[in-house]
Amino acid sequence: MRTYEAYLKLVEDALCPQLRSLGHIPEKLLEAMEYSLSAGGKRLRPVLLLAACDMAGGNVEEALPFACALEMIHTYSLIHDDLPAMDNDDLRRGKPTNHKVYGEDVAILAGDGLLSAAMELMLRAACRMKDLRGVRAAEAIARRSGVTGMVAGQTVDVTEEGSEPTLERVEYIHSHKTADLITAPMEAGLLLAGAGEDQLKAGVDFGFHLGLAFQMVDDLLDVEGDAAVLGKNTGMDAALGKLTWVAAAGVEKTRADAAEHVRIACDALELFGENMNFLKNLAQSTLVRVQ
Amino acid sequence: MRTYEAYLKLVEDALCPQLRSLGHIPEKLLEAMEYSLSAGGKRLRPVLLLAACDMAGGNVEEALPFACALEMIHTYSLIHDDLPAMDNDDLRRGKPTNHKVYGEDVAILAGDGLLSAAMELMLRAACRMKDLRGVRAAEAIARRSGVTGMVAGQTVDVTEEGSEPTLERVEYIHSHKTADLITAPMEAGLLLAGAGEDQLKAGVDFGFHLGLAFQMVDDLLDVEGDAAVLGKNTGMDAALGKLTWVAAAGVEKTRADAAEHVRIACDALELFGENMNFLKNLAQSTLVRVQ
Repeated sequence: MRTYEAYLKLVEDALCPQLRSLGHIPEKLLEAMEYSLSAGGKRLRPVLLLAACDMAGGNVEEALPFACALEMIHTYSLIHDDLPAMDNDDLRRGKPTNHKVYGEDVAILAGDGLLSAAMELMLRAACRMKDLRGVRAAEAIARRSGVTGMVAGQTVDVTEEGSEPTLERVEYIHSHKTADLITAPMEAGLLLAGAGEDQLKAGVDFGFHLGLAFQMVDDLLDVEGDAAVLGKNTGMDAALGKLTWVAAAGVEKTRADAAEHVRIACDALELFGENMNFLKNLAQSTLVRVQ
Repeated sequence: MRTYEAYLKLVEDALCPQLRSLGHIPEKLLEAMEYSLSAGGKRLRPVLLLAACDMAGGNVEEALPFACALEMIHTYSLIHDDLPAMDNDDLRRGKPTNHKVYGEDVAILAGDGLLSAAMELMLRAACRMKDLRGVRAAEAIARRSGVTGMVAGQTVDVTEEGSEPTLERVEYIHSHKTADLITAPMEAGLLLAGAGEDQLKAGVDFGFHLGLAFQMVDDLLDVEGDAAVLGKNTGMDAALGKLTWVAAAGVEKTRADAAEHVRIACDALELFGENMNFLKNLAQSTLVRVQ
């Protein structure tokens, strides 16, 4: 069984080379894209994709372009989300945001470029396969990051900011803005491994519930976390009138719900037997920060 | 042989239904995307895709999702290009630009959404095919609209605005910003029709030279055109220090070059015999406005 660090290293070593493998990219554009792509982070989504593929007996090397593509999509969404017209953030992971360094025009294009590059990498990889696994994996990622997925969640988040934080509204936003991009790597990784319908359904259930728990923990940390440890200001969600789980349900219920969603997520993977251990441990570890 | 109007009607009738076929899209996002998607225009790129597919004996119905996807990509690029941080345009085709109606945040997301939807539609169509034609067509469109194609051209256009308009710089920008998105439908349409290498090369040559001629005509019209007929202000390129063909080579040489590129484009298609007539006529008609 590979460790988190082993998956992480595969991703870190491949991200920029994958982008550069597409051909000649204008210097300024490449620099702006790599600035945000190299800013670190947990790389949770690509690690999940590789681990899901591994769990079902797939080829991790073959899955690598899809893992990198997903991280590029996550990165594009952060660059656009930070723009003055959106969340207007100056800092991300302790560094100036993309538009602060490269200007708004290049930041918009760097985001567009990363999304385009992600699709191109997946399509190029899919062209090399003899069957439709690659196309189906790319379709899952496009669907979950698109207008019925992540972009849908983002839109409701920005257009309904400041409105009443009902549970229904909060669940819609986080099911799409966050959980869809945690479910995408499970679905894509399993499709690449040639998993059957039962395994796919289990992976999708795991991703959905882990995604909700993950966002609940994030919302709790904004209320209870230590700004110095997190590397960002806390209390921002409430100040901005963000539609969070804590705003909708309170701290105690959110903490209990997060634990419950992690339990449901882990139960869903039982059919993978011992092979599920890596993902089970990973899911349970998300709760540690708020216990 | 189909007429331009026949291809156009196929595209117009399919654009919004294709977008809506992806599933539940939040109302505001759908409205903003359809506002720009329904704003009309010549639909040159999707018509070229259907005509190229037709010319090589392909199935036009099967090519329709790819034609619509390409128009969605063209539309996303216009929405982002019009943003205050980019060209800061208030009007397009006589209507207020997307961000003027929906706000900058929703306009950014509408652009992201249209690009995502384009990829999703192509991937869904590719999943339904038994072979790799659909994946290869989608790959060509992603490549030519991405970081070595359209986004590359856009970036150099915004980062080098105001610098010396050398022919080399102008050719780089327009080869990518404009010609790549005219070449993409030729390549994709022919790939969908199962065309051979010779036919593909001919189509790519046609698209490249038509694309350059098309941009030259556009640059000439900005200098010589009638604002009332064009529906937009003229003289804007010079005022903004844009890197145009006219700025690099002057009016007379640009007019002669445009005619020459149309001639080379048409010659490239000779191997299609009579089937090339629609595209040949279309290429020659682009010159009429500046003769």
